[in-house]
Amino acid sequence: MKIAVLGGDGFVGWPTSLHLSDLGHDVHIIDNLSRRWIDTELGVQSLTPMDSIQERTRVWHQETGRRVHFHLIDIARDYDVLKQWLGDNQPDAIVHFAEQRAAPYSMLSDRHKNYTVNNNVSATHNLLNAMVETGIDAHLVHLGTMGVYGYSSVGAAIPEGYLPVGVETLDGETAEQEILYPANPGSIYHMTKCLDQLLFQFYAKNDGLRITDLHQGIVWGTHTDQTRRHEQLINRFDYDGDYGTVLNRFLIQAAIGYPLTVHGTGGQTRAFIHIRDSVRCIELALNAPPKAGDRVEIFNQMTETHRVRDLAELIKRMTGAEIAYLPNPRKEAAENDLVVRNEKFRALGLNPTTLEEGLLEEVVEVARRYEYRLDRSRIPARSAWTKDIAPRLNVDPEGKQLKSIS
Amino acid sequence: MKIAVLGGDGFVGWPTSLHLSDLGHDVHIIDNLSRRWIDTELGVQSLTPMDSIQERTRVWHQETGRRVHFHLIDIARDYDVLKQWLGDNQPDAIVHFAEQRAAPYSMLSDRHKNYTVNNNVSATHNLLNAMVETGIDAHLVHLGTMGVYGYSSVGAAIPEGYLPVGVETLDGETAEQEILYPANPGSIYHMTKCLDQLLFQFYAKNDGLRITDLHQGIVWGTHTDQTRRHEQLINRFDYDGDYGTVLNRFLIQAAIGYPLTVHGTGGQTRAFIHIRDSVRCIELALNAPPKAGDRVEIFNQMTETHRVRDLAELIKRMTGAEIAYLPNPRKEAAENDLVVRNEKFRALGLNPTTLEEGLLEEVVEVARRYEYRLDRSRIPARSAWTKDIAPRLNVDPEGKQLKSIS
Repeated sequence: MKIAVLGGDGFVGWPTSLHLSDLGHDVHIIDNLSRRWIDTELGVQSLTPMDSIQERTRVWHQETGRRVHFHLIDIARDYDVLKQWLGDNQPDAIVHFAEQRAAPYSMLSDRHKNYTVNNNVSATHNLLNAMVETGIDAHLVHLGTMGVYGYSSVGAAIPEGYLPVGVETLDGETAEQEILYPANPGSIYHMTKCLDQLLFQFYAKNDGLRITDLHQGIVWGTHTDQTRRHEQLINRFDYDGDYGTVLNRFLIQAAIGYPLTVHGTGGQTRAFIHIRDSVRCIELALNAPPKAGDRVEIFNQMTETHRVRDLAELIKRMTGAEIAYLPNPRKEAAENDLVVRNEKFRALGLNPTTLEEGLLEEVVEVARRYEYRLDRSRIPARSAWTKDIAPRLNVDPEGKQLKSIS
Repeated sequence: MKIAVLGGDGFVGWPTSLHLSDLGHDVHIIDNLSRRWIDTELGVQSLTPMDSIQERTRVWHQETGRRVHFHLIDIARDYDVLKQWLGDNQPDAIVHFAEQRAAPYSMLSDRHKNYTVNNNVSATHNLLNAMVETGIDAHLVHLGTMGVYGYSSVGAAIPEGYLPVGVETLDGETAEQEILYPANPGSIYHMTKCLDQLLFQFYAKNDGLRITDLHQGIVWGTHTDQTRRHEQLINRFDYDGDYGTVLNRFLIQAAIGYPLTVHGTGGQTRAFIHIRDSVRCIELALNAPPKAGDRVEIFNQMTETHRVRDLAELIKRMTGAEIAYLPNPRKEAAENDLVVRNEKFRALGLNPTTLEEGLLEEVVEVARRYEYRLDRSRIPARSAWTKDIAPRLNVDPEGKQLKSIS
């Protein structure tokens, strides 16, 4: 297949591009390189040294003989360029990662809120609009988030996108129907993924676009079989308070002797997936496209759930790290349960990679190897969800060790 | 109260501004005058001669001694200007009409789709963002649409925003909860109002903003008690295929001897409200603000439902007009039922104005008076919902009379 990977320079986009190229697909990365610009804005960098996308694709060709093409297009800003590219290239499938993807970054300031909303909504809508306008028959696979569901369910398992409900009719009877699971986003970033869902629903219904939406859990790990092949193919690895994700952050903290930063009670239960399964799920979704006229196909792209506190305890036992309980910058339930269905991916052949010491150790090793590139002062989370919460992040009754470190 | 009316130069915004001024409120219109620019773009004009907003507010002062202030701000583009204005002026309430409001216009082309999404999402999000950032404690009243619900219910009455549903829990029991009514928009325009709903839900939850969302039916009529006071205060009156709304269009068509243009079978049932009730509902909503921390307050702003075909027949009987059944440019169910709850507005004191010959005649009289300004070629609807439908609009088996007219 000819596959366009929008956002193919990012943390999941890059290993996905290599994975699909390795499978023999004709892969075209489209990216505005915004993640590199945001690194520059924040003054942080990937823990792993990342070469330019042009150099990375050159090395991939050198190592494998395969080509991954790169096109510098800002799909949120350059609608006409995107439309022209799609019409000229007629991809069979489009994988859409091209959105600002960090909740804390989206809450940093009013400017970051506006950027996240405008960028993400325009990116997704421009893409859908251009697909209709060019008349291409491509299957769109979008990376969403488990966060669209929120974390305050009535104790029911999170279904794969659609919730069966009973509604009382005029006759006083109960009619059964399936609805898009009610959105309950916890941040501006998560909200944009809820907005995306409505855009997808409309374009599938009105124009018959074939769309798969993947509600992904928190990704951990860094290497895939492809990124391992050469030092210069290494994946990016974020450790800072904005872009670093919880489990990877714990592992890095353990590696460098920094207390594991648990926010609030750590009673939050979240869904997780290893980066190797993430790229495999995208392959599986690409192989199972919906038909024109079908509703949006939705998968829960996760393999297990864990309470944040339990993960910290696990890594403490494994590495001897200390745990620092810090004020929670987010406005969220202190404790929640979470049960998630993922039967559809299992039925397609996903064999879940779950937490195991070997893979956890791998991350710790990566962190130790590149520790010389790490700025400890960038580890604390500084983005507060509300103006009330912001001052509390500096008052840190239990974080004395943290203060002495940063 | 000091009230900012965003979009106060428009069809509902203008009479609302005068109504609120007449009640003694300190009214500030904020508008980018985009509706006047769109008239210019489309080469159409309001059937009624509209003076500049500056001249209209001057006449209002001359007639009543009251001031309505006008501020030229594009809230979708000029976030910083909006934020500055809100911080400086600290309004007690904000009425938000400042969005592109026509479904056919939103479907005209890919450019119009992008404009509608980007303009409406940015306008609403900029406003919410600026309200949080300035810390003002204003009640936000937003004009939404009945169209967020869609027209394919399971035969249940449309509740006031929230739908009680039963969800099966892990224990196999059924838990009752209220969810935002599942969105099912019929056009890009309607979709933007669904996106708005999620923005409101998030900002009410995360930041405690006090928000009322009014899901309005199709507005008909043109005069209110205030716009009647002087010829130059007259409201705008759209008759074209993009901005004209169905009942007003029938009445204009009847006035000028043009067949009533029914699309499809006319079996679509829709909700209606007279412009006099529309401005009254906004007053009632302003007087009943939610508390900080409350969920978004939602009202159905409509007074009656009618099948489009029945309205055409009514006006045919009343005026002797002919009816032309034309291909439907929209992708929608040919026939639907619609039962809508509006008890909350009735409880607040709304005494519904329903269809009556006198008010229908009033519209016909306005149309006859200004017929000399009307371009009959702008009456047909030309905006098609999909590329498949577009060619059919020119094939018009029953519309011979229409062809000879346009």
